[in-house]
Amino acid sequence: MRASFARQLFMRHLGAELGEVGHGRVTISCPPRSELTQQHGFVHAGVVAAIADSAAGYAALSLLPAGSEVLTVEFKLNLMAPAEGDLLIARGRVLRSGRTLTVAEATVSALRDGEETACAVLLSTLIRRG
Amino acid sequence: MRASFARQLFMRHLGAELGEVGHGRVTISCPPRSELTQQHGFVHAGVVAAIADSAAGYAALSLLPAGSEVLTVEFKLNLMAPAEGDLLIARGRVLRSGRTLTVAEATVSALRDGEETACAVLLSTLIRRG
Amino acid sequence: MRASFARQLFMRHLGAELGEVGHGRVTISCPPRSELTQQHGFVHAGVVAAIADSAAGYAALSLLPAGSEVLTVEFKLNLMAPAEGDLLIARGRVLRSGRTLTVAEATVSALRDGEETACAVLLSTLIRRG
Amino acid sequence: MRASFARQLFMRHLGAELGEVGHGRVTISCPPRSELTQQHGFVHAGVVAAIADSAAGYAALSLLPAGSEVLTVEFKLNLMAPAEGDLLIARGRVLRSGRTLTVAEATVSALRDGEETACAVLLSTLIRRG
Repeated sequence: MRASFARQLFMRHLGAELGEVGHGRVTISCPPRSELTQQHGFVHAGVVAAIADSAAGYAALSLLPAGSEVLTVEFKLNLMAPAEGDLLIARGRVLRSGRTLTVAEATVSALRDGEETACAVLLSTLIRRG
Repeated sequence: MRASFARQLFMRHLGAELGEVGHGRVTISCPPRSELTQQHGFVHAGVVAAIADSAAGYAALSLLPAGSEVLTVEFKLNLMAPAEGDLLIARGRVLRSGRTLTVAEATVSALRDGEETACAVLLSTLIRRG
Repeated sequence: MRASFARQLFMRHLGAELGEVGHGRVTISCPPRSELTQQHGFVHAGVVAAIADSAAGYAALSLLPAGSEVLTVEFKLNLMAPAEGDLLIARGRVLRSGRTLTVAEATVSALRDGEETACAVLLSTLIRRG
Repeated sequence: MRASFARQLFMRHLGAELGEVGHGRVTISCPPRSELTQQHGFVHAGVVAAIADSAAGYAALSLLPAGSEVLTVEFKLNLMAPAEGDLLIARGRVLRSGRTLTVAEATVSALRDGEETACAVLLSTLIRRG
């Protein structure tokens, strides 16, 4: 999984890092650098979507046999608070792991001065390939 | 609108450009550079989401009084084909422009050798601020 | 397809009827009877979702080999105006028909005195079975 | 809230009942009667959507001042397992209650022989009126 993440050039372009990897659970963190912001100075919804989608995807992958791959079929993202602070943390979690499809969710929170604020929630469907 | 887009540092970080701006319709294009890819070499879903969300957002803004601002409340993105080729083109369109909320959609297609392939479709809700 | 629709007891319970069936396009109509309403007297979002989901599903089915079946994997519904009037009309349309998955959309409009108002839009993913 | 639910004629048409009502949490149950089924004999996605949407909506309402009303702006529903058994149970929960918008989720599970199976998950946005 860490090799796969390292091949995600976009995660590097964002400055995102793979954190804890558990059974059906994965964490990805990303510092909210200025080049990730939209016109109001908050992190762009696309960045929030990217790390949430990746966290959900690796959570899905963590429950599949080695050598499997997953592709995102679709996701929905609700933005609940501005994404800003010291660090964004996306936590993916599998809700249902089927033979072909996986349903996963992810939350994104912003860490500031040691306190976390919930920024966004994602609900996604992924398909197994290979 | 172009001034607002220019302040979106993340659009610059992606290499995305604002194209045509019409009444309730906006186009954003983005070359699929290698730093935007995921582990299979296709453009990351987060990039696709970012340009689709922005196209929908500026389409919403185009129907509001000057000085208005919009924030994305939520969006759903369906990925239909790998995002690759010579250029990604996101086209946003307003479905309903209300006093407080706007419903918009966007399609993302990949241009390769002059032919377009539909890659993704987004459906979003935006809220007016200011 | 009409045999399948006739086995949908819930469509009968709603009073919904299958209308035009084309290549990748299906129409379902439903009179907004009082037993379909929510607390404000408009048709309940669940009814709107039901006819939109079914229209999208039969549109998906119309492009698959005879004997195929489809199941809804997920859908998103945006409600744009109150569902009321003389007749609700859901029109499903396939956006992409793949080997395993189909992406479809549906619009729901309300007919009143011969004029249609757009009430809702649905974007869904379906999976082929059999 | 119970008076509002009683005015939802569609909930009565489904045979759904309002169960526990807590601070930001609401339960709605519905027996999977035959008139609620689709062509495979499972409960129709529209029914699952209806009780999940209502559970999320009443959960949202439970956190607002008396006399408030909420309307569903949009929702996304993932179907994870066939909806069948002795009783369907939708549990709504507020994720974020804002001044104008509320983000809520709901799960739907099927009870059979005393065991619950997760059938569906919904993520929705609601707007306050009045």
